[in-house]
Amino acid sequence: MTSVQSDIEIARAAAKKPIMEIGAALGIPADQLVPYGHDKAKVSADFIGSLSGRPDGKLILVTAVNPTPAGEGKTTTTVGLGDGLNRIGKRAIVCVREPSLGPCFGMKGGAAGGGYAQVVPMDDINLHFTGDFHAITAAHNLLSALIDNHLYWGNALGVDSRRVVWRRALDMNDRALRDMVCGLGGASNGFPRQTGFDITVASEIMAILCLASDLEDLERRLGDIIVAYRHDKSPVFARDLKADGAMTVLLKDAMQPNLVQTLENNPAFVHGGPFANIAHGCNSVVATRTALKLADYVVTEAGFGADLGAEKFFNIKCRKAGLKPAAAVIVATIRALKMNGGVAKADLGHENVDAVKAGCANLGRHIENVKQFGVPAIVAINHFSGDTDREIDAVRDYVARFGEEAIVCRHWEKGSAGIVDLAEKVVELAETGHAQFAPLYPDEMSLFGKMETVVKRIYRGAEAVAEPTVLDQLSQWEAAGYGHLPVCMAKTQYSFSTDPTALGAPNDHTVAIREVRLSAGAGFVVAITGQIMTMPGLPRTPAAETIHLDDRGQIEGLF
Amino acid sequence: MTSVQSDIEIARAAAKKPIMEIGAALGIPADQLVPYGHDKAKVSADFIGSLSGRPDGKLILVTAVNPTPAGEGKTTTTVGLGDGLNRIGKRAIVCVREPSLGPCFGMKGGAAGGGYAQVVPMDDINLHFTGDFHAITAAHNLLSALIDNHLYWGNALGVDSRRVVWRRALDMNDRALRDMVCGLGGASNGFPRQTGFDITVASEIMAILCLASDLEDLERRLGDIIVAYRHDKSPVFARDLKADGAMTVLLKDAMQPNLVQTLENNPAFVHGGPFANIAHGCNSVVATRTALKLADYVVTEAGFGADLGAEKFFNIKCRKAGLKPAAAVIVATIRALKMNGGVAKADLGHENVDAVKAGCANLGRHIENVKQFGVPAIVAINHFSGDTDREIDAVRDYVARFGEEAIVCRHWEKGSAGIVDLAEKVVELAETGHAQFAPLYPDEMSLFGKMETVVKRIYRGAEAVAEPTVLDQLSQWEAAGYGHLPVCMAKTQYSFSTDPTALGAPNDHTVAIREVRLSAGAGFVVAITGQIMTMPGLPRTPAAETIHLDDRGQIEGLF
Repeated sequence: MTSVQSDIEIARAAAKKPIMEIGAALGIPADQLVPYGHDKAKVSADFIGSLSGRPDGKLILVTAVNPTPAGEGKTTTTVGLGDGLNRIGKRAIVCVREPSLGPCFGMKGGAAGGGYAQVVPMDDINLHFTGDFHAITAAHNLLSALIDNHLYWGNALGVDSRRVVWRRALDMNDRALRDMVCGLGGASNGFPRQTGFDITVASEIMAILCLASDLEDLERRLGDIIVAYRHDKSPVFARDLKADGAMTVLLKDAMQPNLVQTLENNPAFVHGGPFANIAHGCNSVVATRTALKLADYVVTEAGFGADLGAEKFFNIKCRKAGLKPAAAVIVATIRALKMNGGVAKADLGHENVDAVKAGCANLGRHIENVKQFGVPAIVAINHFSGDTDREIDAVRDYVARFGEEAIVCRHWEKGSAGIVDLAEKVVELAETGHAQFAPLYPDEMSLFGKMETVVKRIYRGAEAVAEPTVLDQLSQWEAAGYGHLPVCMAKTQYSFSTDPTALGAPNDHTVAIREVRLSAGAGFVVAITGQIMTMPGLPRTPAAETIHLDDRGQIEGLF
Repeated sequence: MTSVQSDIEIARAAAKKPIMEIGAALGIPADQLVPYGHDKAKVSADFIGSLSGRPDGKLILVTAVNPTPAGEGKTTTTVGLGDGLNRIGKRAIVCVREPSLGPCFGMKGGAAGGGYAQVVPMDDINLHFTGDFHAITAAHNLLSALIDNHLYWGNALGVDSRRVVWRRALDMNDRALRDMVCGLGGASNGFPRQTGFDITVASEIMAILCLASDLEDLERRLGDIIVAYRHDKSPVFARDLKADGAMTVLLKDAMQPNLVQTLENNPAFVHGGPFANIAHGCNSVVATRTALKLADYVVTEAGFGADLGAEKFFNIKCRKAGLKPAAAVIVATIRALKMNGGVAKADLGHENVDAVKAGCANLGRHIENVKQFGVPAIVAINHFSGDTDREIDAVRDYVARFGEEAIVCRHWEKGSAGIVDLAEKVVELAETGHAQFAPLYPDEMSLFGKMETVVKRIYRGAEAVAEPTVLDQLSQWEAAGYGHLPVCMAKTQYSFSTDPTALGAPNDHTVAIREVRLSAGAGFVVAITGQIMTMPGLPRTPAAETIHLDDRGQIEGLF
């Protein structure tokens, strides 16, 4: 990679077009775009409603090998492929997630692609953007306040104050808020009880916003949220607190997808950003569907590696939204494959063909897994300057054994010019139309059966196990009518197993379902297989200490 | 009042102009306006910087008698007077505060004027608007997180964890968060300590944003915030945590004033909204100064009655920002004067001239007080349909005794056509130029002396008293270099005294300064004279229960 400019320098030097022009090229009239500054806009709900009769473009998923500290560049490849498809004459839209504000102040680094494959304005996108996450925070905490207010004013619904499951939310890394006792200070402040805050991206409202098809569906799902249980264990819904209408009002603007542009002035929707462990980790259904109506090709990404991200994209998002992906791109880097092959990060600078070959086991399994869903797969090798030809050839040879192709991509360095080969291959795959997408398990399968299916067929574990209390809970939910829901696996992103150090392609492990949670509004049952952190902390030296405005009013230290 | 339409119906029926047109009429180029939708925009910091050489227009303060449950209509009169001045050929801009989100879900009612004197889009202004309050919330909670993170990673600054004075903030009415213990759950979550949340408008950052002259001044003030004390009682500043740069980054957009329009398509800045008890209760200095550069007349309001609002506007905002108000309008209603004269709210429907005369004592004292600052005063009687001619004449006669005029205004019913008389009188007063504004006390006076001055000359109390611990604290701050700051009195808004039931014009009461707080970033010392609630609760039946979107996607139940 020859670029010596940082991501933010490249982003700032971009010759952005007015966002109204980007919208006009998609056929969106100016009065149907709600501007936020001159380079960001929301697409109006009315306009989206007017698109229903149109045919859909082809949906391309970008997923990856298991993440390593070496970096894979999934968002970068998603953006690059969008630019590449536009370069070869296809009308393509990129659909990615919105980054969370809180983590920006912890570890350095934004999340809007990189190099010459970015969405802009990068700084705005990483900060308040169009206020979607703030709206979700507000809606979340309104519901929280209504719960304690209900307890305060007599608890007519008979809520068991020990079984309030709805916590509070902030878009901030603040470990001190993970666990707290509120309602102290005497009678006028309510009843003390133990609760805590999650980061906004972990809010069920984030998952709901990303799965809802329109405002009506949003309101219904918000009403379906289980906030607490009574002494007889019966659930109390947000609807029982009459919270759903006001929450919908707070979220009405946030439901409209955000249009921005790539460095090459191609359109991108950046909308929604649920966690990829306790939630499904994809951008919003509204954005994806809208993009499919407006473009020949829509390139979207899913969180973490394909074992978590692609599995949930297929089994949750595509199933529920009726999406039919035409192809999947699995992003790998030589560096990540080496780490999966046992090389330490410090030793990545040396050629090591054997390690690459060993690490390919991880890639191979993701290829097999994606194909299980009836979706053709292609491998993108996101090129780094230290990669050697022999290492690259090792990956190519390995992938060929699956009847697939691995294509070297240089979009980080060269923008769309570096990713034409991948774009052409994606078009070839998509237009032959041999995708036969189907989710991995039917709605009718038992909840534990669904978990077992993912464990055995995707993680290649020997078995899924759970304590009787967990199995009882699943049975109760099935009896209550939630048995048709898909499952959302919360597992470490670093391994196919629940052991984050077991890289490569581990086999025959046991996956313990330690806890299950019902996200009744989002519409899935979460299976927790390890420690899941829903409120991050800040590091010893937070990035916040160096973030500031320079003399020209530009942000320094954020990226 | 003949209107049968609700405020929101009138607001929705408004023929709004594109906000770029409103800006263009003020001479703001389109590329210097940052649009938020088609009807809201921020004025760029660059454009504001370019105005420094221009002369200032005339500044008119709108204040009021002490508030009663009968309603006074201060914001409505501010907006109406702006329209009235434009109607008679003056270029006028209205400058009002942004409403807070949290209270919208408690008691019904927005805050953007009323009847035919409103700023629009009313629903957006009352909800997320341009995200300013969310940005303040984020900046506030970043600082909070950095404090607990500092304790977690070894507390190099030696913070006494019992003396952390910086709390957290949310723009939500949530009494359960007033008092809490955070950091529970074991070593990985930090050190347990007692703290709580305030509503965002009570954040010192809100006051700072409203008093800062530019981003540089903002950053300096943010750094000056005292977040905690060490075991030796020495203060720990936000700057010590290196938080000021990142907070400034979070607030850079929020610092830019928001341009909207009145129902009559005249320009209005709606920007900032600090509490009027523990803070100074005025819109931002940046908005006011920018408006003065762009208009002949700027009409602005201050919180609560003139004893709190006008006093702080003059002694804090005008002193610190170098503003010289040309005239003040004191808003009264026949109904409010009757209540100040001893009539219960249920009996306001009957003519009662004697009660009006008795209640005028409250008005008279506010007239005297405003004139003490060298600012000419005029009384606006905000007309209600039940007002009788004899009641109105009683007020006119009373005000004439002060050599001033009381003018009946019908802007609620008729828009600018109903307030021409007041507009002409304001112009006459302002253009004769006999305003000789001066703050009530010099910077050099002792802190307690400043409190005594306000108590005696504004509240007409016999004395201010304070425990030795309070006096010691003030001496310590004076020794530490904070003696030059103005004082910010936190007193009930309902009475000149500290007894909220003592209406009219009580005399010779004692005002006890129970507690003092140093807002070192905002630049004032708060004197607390009673119970001050910085986190409201929700009522038994919150407005949130009825707020929803109707079939056309319009908000119902918010107003």
